[in-house]
Amino acid sequence: MDCWVYEHGAWRQTNQGLSYSDRGLVYGDGLFETCRVHQGKIPLLDLHKQRLKYGLQALYFPATTANLVETALASLPSPALKAGGKLLVTRGISQRGYDIPADITPSLIWYSFDTLAWGIERFPEGYQVDLNSVLLARQPMLAGIKHLNRLEQVLARSKFVEGCQEMVMCDMQGYVVEGTMSNLFWFKDGYLFTPSLHYCGVRGVVRSWLMQQQRVNIVRIPPKQLMEADAVFFTNAISGLVPVKQLSGHVFAQNDAWQSVLQLQKKLELLYC
Amino acid sequence: MDCWVYEHGAWRQTNQGLSYSDRGLVYGDGLFETCRVHQGKIPLLDLHKQRLKYGLQALYFPATTANLVETALASLPSPALKAGGKLLVTRGISQRGYDIPADITPSLIWYSFDTLAWGIERFPEGYQVDLNSVLLARQPMLAGIKHLNRLEQVLARSKFVEGCQEMVMCDMQGYVVEGTMSNLFWFKDGYLFTPSLHYCGVRGVVRSWLMQQQRVNIVRIPPKQLMEADAVFFTNAISGLVPVKQLSGHVFAQNDAWQSVLQLQKKLELLYC
Repeated sequence: MDCWVYEHGAWRQTNQGLSYSDRGLVYGDGLFETCRVHQGKIPLLDLHKQRLKYGLQALYFPATTANLVETALASLPSPALKAGGKLLVTRGISQRGYDIPADITPSLIWYSFDTLAWGIERFPEGYQVDLNSVLLARQPMLAGIKHLNRLEQVLARSKFVEGCQEMVMCDMQGYVVEGTMSNLFWFKDGYLFTPSLHYCGVRGVVRSWLMQQQRVNIVRIPPKQLMEADAVFFTNAISGLVPVKQLSGHVFAQNDAWQSVLQLQKKLELLYC
Repeated sequence: MDCWVYEHGAWRQTNQGLSYSDRGLVYGDGLFETCRVHQGKIPLLDLHKQRLKYGLQALYFPATTANLVETALASLPSPALKAGGKLLVTRGISQRGYDIPADITPSLIWYSFDTLAWGIERFPEGYQVDLNSVLLARQPMLAGIKHLNRLEQVLARSKFVEGCQEMVMCDMQGYVVEGTMSNLFWFKDGYLFTPSLHYCGVRGVVRSWLMQQQRVNIVRIPPKQLMEADAVFFTNAISGLVPVKQLSGHVFAQNDAWQSVLQLQKKLELLYC
């Protein structure tokens, strides 16, 4: 993984050098985006920018930060545009204390990395999935955005059981929310569903893309209801759409709904050709 | 503010240089402690170490990290021991992804800064306080520990109204939890109370010290019940104990309970003489 830092209007490759007073470190005061890159382009860039802009607003960043990010992304050097990219934006340096400074110089960091193949290519039979025991806290002020406060995901990832590629996370009230690093969808009787992210969870860009492709019903369900679905699948900017083969012992058939997931994945892949 | 980094068994003064792959930055994967220092010593050091150790366990750090912290704290150079200090511990560098690496090299950073006088010296009439509109999410797995996921506090601090020195924070269920940067206590009919931190909040070291001094009843109350207290006060490692002068318009009398708060503050100050 290579790191690039945006300073004085230009990207500079470096692996270390962050100020120890950077609010990204001391409070997790910032956001990130993880992208799949294709031939030096980021096909879902507009959706990434939209989510980042929404996140910056939610965290009370000044409007100038979104403009700076826009400019910076437009000038990424080609060696930084490998198969995978991650942009991290923090509120930059401040004095001690939670108080947001009147003037900020955001830190912009770009990580460039090789990606694995699409999830369905690596797991053509689908994901093996179980329920994660970590429950997501409900915080509507931070819901949807991809902020740097990711301890719940770190804890959840540590609960992965052998053989699982993803796990379903519920909130404190017991409703299904998402995966540990993906969004969750399911087909039932021809209709497409996904959990509400009003209280917690991250609004993934592939989730947003999918909601542009077809009607998606946003609901709250307990996890056992997932077993009644015709097909369950996860979405993630790097892995794409991957159907669930087995969920807590329940095996999903490779039925028409399963085929619909594969077709949607093919449609997504067209953006990367 | 000066920063010191613990590397290869020694502290080195530097203001920048953190790896952009440090999990403290990318996930807020770490903890911190803020201490009041007196003549090169940290009077409540044992309580700080206890909380940090508990936090490291809660975040599944290996036991070796607590030992490393212990060794590092014992060798802080005297120029790093000014009036205030903050230790920040992260899980160090890892590859991309939430997965906790099998082997970690934690990052240890010490911040040294001048402190203000005790809160009661700066605000002898007590704090002007209001209710904060940011509600704390309930996450028992992270409750009590002083982790680096502090966006709720950043948002809450941005809601401070003119003239307030602290604000009362409630959880999503509407129960009082703490201040934005302090713990909260109150006297009623000679008894001392503080909110339960089972679901959220930080177990401050002055809170722990106070609970060693006298019996404290841990309860859940809605904020309006604070108005019926004989005295309300905040505790914080830097500011000490500070009574509330006014809470959302309700003025507290400088009664016997108020005097008890001042006496407890005097008792705390004895540790710093």
